[in-house]
Amino acid sequence: MEVTRRNFKESLPTVYEAIGEADFLAIDGEFSGISDGPNVSALTNGLDTPEERYTKLKKHSMDFLLFQFGLCTFKYDQSKSKYIIKPFNFYVFPKPFNRSSPDIKFICQSSSIDFLASQGFDFNKVFCNGIPYLNQDEEVQLREQTEERRNQHANGVGTPSFNSPSSKSPAHVPDEHKDFISKVVKKVEDLLTSSDKCVDLEPCTGFQRKLMYQTLNWKFPKGIHIETVETEKKERFIQVSKVDDEERKRREQKKLEREQEELNDAVGFSRVIHAISKSGKLVVGHNMLLDVMHTIHQFYCPLPEDLQDFKEVTMCVFPRLLDTKLMSSTQPFKELINNTSLAELEKQLKETPFRCPQVETAEGFSSYNTAQEQLHEAGYDAYITGLCFVSMANYLGTFLTPPKSHICARSKLIEPFYNKLFLMRIIDIPYLNITGPDLQPKRDHVLYVTFPKEWKTSDLYQLFSAFGNIQVSWIDDTSAFVSLSQTDQVQIAMNTSRYAESYKIQKYADYVQAKQTKDQQDRQKQRQP
Amino acid sequence: MEVTRRNFKESLPTVYEAIGEADFLAIDGEFSGISDGPNVSALTNGLDTPEERYTKLKKHSMDFLLFQFGLCTFKYDQSKSKYIIKPFNFYVFPKPFNRSSPDIKFICQSSSIDFLASQGFDFNKVFCNGIPYLNQDEEVQLREQTEERRNQHANGVGTPSFNSPSSKSPAHVPDEHKDFISKVVKKVEDLLTSSDKCVDLEPCTGFQRKLMYQTLNWKFPKGIHIETVETEKKERFIQVSKVDDEERKRREQKKLEREQEELNDAVGFSRVIHAISKSGKLVVGHNMLLDVMHTIHQFYCPLPEDLQDFKEVTMCVFPRLLDTKLMSSTQPFKELINNTSLAELEKQLKETPFRCPQVETAEGFSSYNTAQEQLHEAGYDAYITGLCFVSMANYLGTFLTPPKSHICARSKLIEPFYNKLFLMRIIDIPYLNITGPDLQPKRDHVLYVTFPKEWKTSDLYQLFSAFGNIQVSWIDDTSAFVSLSQTDQVQIAMNTSRYAESYKIQKYADYVQAKQTKDQQDRQKQRQP
Ligand SMILES: Nc1nc2c(ncn2[C@@H]2O[C@H](COP(=O)(O)OP(=O)(O)O)[C@@H](O)[C@H]2O)c(=O)[nH]1
Ligand SMILES: Nc1nc2c(ncn2[C@@H]2O[C@H](COP(=O)(O)OP(=O)(O)O)[C@@H](O)[C@H]2O)c(=O)[nH]1
Repeated sequence: MEVTRRNFKESLPTVYEAIGEADFLAIDGEFSGISDGPNVSALTNGLDTPEERYTKLKKHSMDFLLFQFGLCTFKYDQSKSKYIIKPFNFYVFPKPFNRSSPDIKFICQSSSIDFLASQGFDFNKVFCNGIPYLNQDEEVQLREQTEERRNQHANGVGTPSFNSPSSKSPAHVPDEHKDFISKVVKKVEDLLTSSDKCVDLEPCTGFQRKLMYQTLNWKFPKGIHIETVETEKKERFIQVSKVDDEERKRREQKKLEREQEELNDAVGFSRVIHAISKSGKLVVGHNMLLDVMHTIHQFYCPLPEDLQDFKEVTMCVFPRLLDTKLMSSTQPFKELINNTSLAELEKQLKETPFRCPQVETAEGFSSYNTAQEQLHEAGYDAYITGLCFVSMANYLGTFLTPPKSHICARSKLIEPFYNKLFLMRIIDIPYLNITGPDLQPKRDHVLYVTFPKEWKTSDLYQLFSAFGNIQVSWIDDTSAFVSLSQTDQVQIAMNTSRYAESYKIQKYADYVQAKQTKDQQDRQKQRQP
Repeated sequence: MEVTRRNFKESLPTVYEAIGEADFLAIDGEFSGISDGPNVSALTNGLDTPEERYTKLKKHSMDFLLFQFGLCTFKYDQSKSKYIIKPFNFYVFPKPFNRSSPDIKFICQSSSIDFLASQGFDFNKVFCNGIPYLNQDEEVQLREQTEERRNQHANGVGTPSFNSPSSKSPAHVPDEHKDFISKVVKKVEDLLTSSDKCVDLEPCTGFQRKLMYQTLNWKFPKGIHIETVETEKKERFIQVSKVDDEERKRREQKKLEREQEELNDAVGFSRVIHAISKSGKLVVGHNMLLDVMHTIHQFYCPLPEDLQDFKEVTMCVFPRLLDTKLMSSTQPFKELINNTSLAELEKQLKETPFRCPQVETAEGFSSYNTAQEQLHEAGYDAYITGLCFVSMANYLGTFLTPPKSHICARSKLIEPFYNKLFLMRIIDIPYLNITGPDLQPKRDHVLYVTFPKEWKTSDLYQLFSAFGNIQVSWIDDTSAFVSLSQTDQVQIAMNTSRYAESYKIQKYADYVQAKQTKDQQDRQKQRQP
């Protein structure tokens, strides 16, 4: 189901129901870009620590926009022995809610945009009909603003200005507006003595409207109802109606309800994420670290500085996660699957020893056909991801005695894969462990090498040719990690390099030590004014 | 005429012709955002100096993308006594040219995007079919890369690595590729002794292709032609053909031409701007400072730090500019026109004492109808801007004796308006003077006031209520300029404020002095490591 601003409100009950009844949920996001940094390979060094990787992703990826969110709910139907699925494809865009709402800026990366364009992505749907959203701070702020305005309207007094000369005389009208305001007062007086029900005052500035609210509420505490109305041309004017006490209350009640509704509209797509979060259901994604980071960043709160804090926030928002890329590159799947990209994985999981999962699209949802791929539409990718999970989960059931053909999302067999998010291109740390400390592999066969910027990978191969197989992980133009195949070669390399002029070698541990000292110094410098 | 990547190459001669024959050109740009800063009013302070304004616009506006460029050419037809116009609406997007081309990042501002969306802007056309472009540095770099690769191919030697161990043995093949390369050599030897004309080698990595080029050019300096071919699936492989000397030259010539063509394609839309620039024709725009800055930034070079340097670059790129917003807010138009926004200006310039200009759309161009406005399509806005210019120019002719009904773009009467770009919302400096020093208005009736962030404009009115009319120019939350109506009030205000605790007052001159000293210190600090 395609969900845009046009049909969001009416679709929300369907979305809530699908989440509520599901056994597990699959998600996927499409972004306006991936990496803001110099180049992706430098940003995903093969020997990053989890902390380094998190910091890089946070710094270089969070200013992009998550503008399409795919959700596919999977509910197992015992009687049919198959999953009933409900796929949703949400278009998301931070349309400013009103003139005082945050005017979000986001980065687009031309390669990503061009890639999506080549896949037939509909940018007009995002930008014209994307569903708005607020993060939690923005939501709280908006609620407070509304509350504050309501209080102002009730007692006819402006926000008290701390220490300001005007705080003692709330209805102070600057000289140049005095004429205007007395005319307005006259008009309202005329209204009260005439047989008319209401009067439209002429369009004016927000400041003038504020003065009018203050003055009129002050002068006419009873008998009238004041409201700002917008013309078709978006001009705003004030309408004053003659009302008795009952009518006045009724109108104020209606205004309250309208405000509440507007608030909910502004929170928009975040309500879907809140529902996913509150459901506590297993959320499955493919290579989902960036999806999780973006979702939290965009719909909950700015990401914390610290990896440990990020893990805690993640567990609050998504109490159970499963990454199919990590699962498929872990035993027993590792040996059976040679390409873990989503499209390839899906194909391989249809073949023996796996079995194509039986699914049926729920009534009222148009079904995806895996034969004519619609990859890179978030809703489709979420669907495929869910299929992959089902296939792998069921495969685990074949090891049981007696074998089971359906393994549910809460099975003990799945638990080892919970809350481990795939870390791309890190040689020796397969995943980020959201619920505990990360793996700390030994890196004493690794050298940190610096060299002139003209060097290529082949120059490094050449330099270490005596040591057999090496692995190069570029850091930047002039440095790289070189992993030797044997630890005892490290000292030999260090010795031979002692008199080299064009390049320098350091042991990994020494490099880490030096870097930590430097980072600490930098932080101290920053703290000083 | 709508121009996208699809029809750009075939439209270029039409564009060149239109520019070549025109009497003047009107332009307009649409951007992905306007201001990256905290809020627009803070960024356009009413008492900015031209330097400050330039610096702010450069800092907060240049990361947006100019993605639609309107050009309307106006050619006067003596016999018909009317202008023949040719409107063009170009969609522009920095599609990466190849895998090594710059991957441009640009910012989108949700309010701007939302505004364009509400005007029916077609984002898919921009992102899917936008014309690519390069600035001058990128063009030079690409030409050099192509040149360098050509030289490499010719002598079969890789880029010499400065100081690197491999520089002495250009065709060094790392161990793990030796097998692969000897198989390749074998295949080519087989080709030479067989009756086949060519052989396709298997797809491989770029590094392997590089090794193949180096080795094969080294081993077989004659008799073969080597070329990289791309399959439909975007896999690249090398094709080796048996050729005699003549055929080899012919193929190399063809390759050269293809490379030249690809280069021109990459320069893309910048060629239109180059043509406008070279033509030296009068370029008319409405409130065009941002258009000019973006055009130079995107298609020529990053904007210089210094305002004076910017003026010089601008004169090189656009030797004659005219801003209709500035013109319409200058004598003799100032008294006749009360709203200088483009849409309103166009309407007013159809009424007496002005006359609706006679124009005709050239054959083969679909004509715009000013009755059903298509504002905010760049091509239409450029067209309307040109109309406004013609109307105002002709009005100047009514002052001549005898009056003239047509005033040409090169008339002496227009000269006073050349090269003065409207400065938005600066109280006392109407324009940026591109060809000379800027106006330096006296500001000795101005006070710099700082106060608690709870203050509102009305608090400032209140504070200075004894001085009659004042003008407030907000700087940020806690400071503003206050212009008093009389200079001799400044000292009185200073005296009364002496013991104030909640706010502080400074004379404008003292403020400027203090700021300059601070800026200088900041710059010195930055220079120190
Ligand atoms: N005292 C008082 N001020 C109001 C009231 N409604 C609006 N205002 C103020 O008047 C200004 C104009 O309000 P409005 O016409 O609703 O347009 P807005 O600019 O979108 O808020 C705002 O800055 C509000 O602070 C009211 O009922 N009472
Ligand atoms: N020596 C030499 N190197 C080449 C030649 N053509 C390409 N290369 C190198 O081989 C690598 C692969 O080239 P190519 O197959 O054209 O794909 P590319 O990666 O898009 O440049 C590039 O990095 C080039 O530097 C050639 O004719 N001679």
